[in-house]
Amino acid sequence: MSVTFPHGFRAAGVTAGMKPSGRPDLGLLLGNEPRSAAGLFTTNLFAAAPVKLSRRRLGRNLAQAVVVNSGQANAGTGIQGDRDAEASSAAVADALGLDPSVVLMCSTGVIGEPLHLDEYLAALPELVGALSEDGGDAFAEAIMTTDTVAKQASAERGPYRVGGCAKGVGMIDPDLKLATMLAFVTTDAPIPPADIGRLATEVLEPRFESLTVDGCTSTNDTVLLMSSAAAGGELVLPGTPGWGQVAEALDEVAASVLLQLAADAEGATHVILVEVTGAEREGDARVIAKAIADSLLVKTAVFGGDPNPGRILQAIGSSGVQFLPQLVEVSIGNVRVILGGEILTSYFDEGGAEAAKAVLREHDVVLSVSVGGGPGESRALGVDLSHEYVKINSEYTT
Amino acid sequence: MSVTFPHGFRAAGVTAGMKPSGRPDLGLLLGNEPRSAAGLFTTNLFAAAPVKLSRRRLGRNLAQAVVVNSGQANAGTGIQGDRDAEASSAAVADALGLDPSVVLMCSTGVIGEPLHLDEYLAALPELVGALSEDGGDAFAEAIMTTDTVAKQASAERGPYRVGGCAKGVGMIDPDLKLATMLAFVTTDAPIPPADIGRLATEVLEPRFESLTVDGCTSTNDTVLLMSSAAAGGELVLPGTPGWGQVAEALDEVAASVLLQLAADAEGATHVILVEVTGAEREGDARVIAKAIADSLLVKTAVFGGDPNPGRILQAIGSSGVQFLPQLVEVSIGNVRVILGGEILTSYFDEGGAEAAKAVLREHDVVLSVSVGGGPGESRALGVDLSHEYVKINSEYTT
Repeated sequence: MSVTFPHGFRAAGVTAGMKPSGRPDLGLLLGNEPRSAAGLFTTNLFAAAPVKLSRRRLGRNLAQAVVVNSGQANAGTGIQGDRDAEASSAAVADALGLDPSVVLMCSTGVIGEPLHLDEYLAALPELVGALSEDGGDAFAEAIMTTDTVAKQASAERGPYRVGGCAKGVGMIDPDLKLATMLAFVTTDAPIPPADIGRLATEVLEPRFESLTVDGCTSTNDTVLLMSSAAAGGELVLPGTPGWGQVAEALDEVAASVLLQLAADAEGATHVILVEVTGAEREGDARVIAKAIADSLLVKTAVFGGDPNPGRILQAIGSSGVQFLPQLVEVSIGNVRVILGGEILTSYFDEGGAEAAKAVLREHDVVLSVSVGGGPGESRALGVDLSHEYVKINSEYTT
Repeated sequence: MSVTFPHGFRAAGVTAGMKPSGRPDLGLLLGNEPRSAAGLFTTNLFAAAPVKLSRRRLGRNLAQAVVVNSGQANAGTGIQGDRDAEASSAAVADALGLDPSVVLMCSTGVIGEPLHLDEYLAALPELVGALSEDGGDAFAEAIMTTDTVAKQASAERGPYRVGGCAKGVGMIDPDLKLATMLAFVTTDAPIPPADIGRLATEVLEPRFESLTVDGCTSTNDTVLLMSSAAAGGELVLPGTPGWGQVAEALDEVAASVLLQLAADAEGATHVILVEVTGAEREGDARVIAKAIADSLLVKTAVFGGDPNPGRILQAIGSSGVQFLPQLVEVSIGNVRVILGGEILTSYFDEGGAEAAKAVLREHDVVLSVSVGGGPGESRALGVDLSHEYVKINSEYTT
């Protein structure tokens, strides 16, 4: 169900033939009418043509449809790429009888390869014909590239429903900057255009920023939040109980989708949750959490099942953030390995290493770091680095 | 020969038994008298005890000896680590009849494990007895950890000799910030203490900063430059012909040692030289070069022999540096793949991919990037990411 769980949305996914694998590669999500929408986009300077188009069209925070193709990213394609994005989204608007200004688009796939416009356009009648209130699954499947499973979630709070789906297994980095990560979140709560952006930046952005697979920020990263207002009732404004309900449901959906993304990340055998507390500022805590989650040495240590606290200490110390080293504490799961900035001798002498190794035998690994007494805290969600990651990325053309 | 190629230096390396492998693990480099010296040290906040000691003692830019142990990094070891560093260097000073203030020290190996002081001290008589003007090779071997070959180089300009050696195969990042990279450069040129630091920061630092193996900055990185003044003659001062000669010889030795480090990097099957030009500032160019050299997707693409220009474009665009995307040009070897910020269609249509693949069949790969018309240029020296890197780093305790 996912994106069609909230009332007022239909979706579809079909095989247009743009993806060499022959799997579904064109998805469409449609609201009942133009309503509030907000987007979070990549900060990569080579933002793809569909990113530029969607960002521009969301200037008024209104949208009704989003069309997504997988196979070609339509990035690094210059003016022709912009023309292809305009043409394809215009054709979608035409097929739906909408003004093009409320049609958004996303692309994912090989960078630099031109959009397969002929196949794209030829598939539109079938795509529009397949729209359905049960189409969330088909949509979630059509947006996949090398994902092995579709990522979907839904939540309900009071009268409001939230649904979401996402794709992305590599080229993923926090900073929203998510890197060939596409995520679509829908709600039927009646949120005004002037306020929906706050939900995106306050609830979704911190969640999606915490994810890092390989520290590589794609040209196409997009998180779209769309509302249908189909739940009816009073407008959901900041400070109202409804606002809190919607925010909670959004957070639940985002958290679930993120865990699913991490679990399906290329070659991942472990999910690594890094929790940093005690920093001067939240931003400092985020930099440290990311430095640990992105460290090749930490990632390979977790893959190898060897805790290696020295590598965690190394990553913290070279993050660029200033703190007092002698205040640093680190635990692997519930096993304290660093205290007062020193690796505990119990790690080497008294079975500490064995206890920490036991933590790494679990699929989900929590690394807790405190760097002082400050109020700043943040987290990063990462994965280990396995032979499979190297295999996948040395054989696949992005 | 290496560090003993310049006149006025002796060196030795012995097996103290601190390294589980049983290979040589204690090295000593000695000048004929206390002379000018300078150091470049890690910026990791968890700087190892020997780094703190050496940095402090180099305050007057005078040194006569450096002792290096491999096996334990003496980092993350707190106050006991500082005491061990003081005790061991004092013992070395005692054995050599020197004032401790002119004895420097370096350590490399497992972070957090206490220094094996008993074995260290017991080996000193043998170490001092082994000092020889031909001891450069033994010294270079004793400082190795998982290096498969010793890295050594020498150069001569006019009356001056320069020699160098280094170790380090992983946890290496530019920013000097070199990460378990130790390098020792000697010269017999008579350089005053007040000026030797300039040679270190102007000649050695840019070279060593360009190297990145895995973007991980160690707690122990150190580059030491020591002079014996044994060549005699007039003082070598900035602006004199002798200064230029020494700088040239230093640069030649540093460049050679760096290439050797890259070629022996953990699991590396290719050396990747990234050259960036046209940036607003040199610092911008360095950031972009490093972003490309550190990109997991670029590294695995080179390993896989698949050029993937989209991954290079992605890395440039997410480096955080501002530039005009439409001015960006990229070549893989001599094959132009990106022009005007676009991936050339010839890459997909006209055999461009095949030509670029041929470049990746060579061991050394040059990626040339221009981001505009600015004067800023820089380079990064990196390596690919192979199955072997994952294997080594998932099975070795740093």
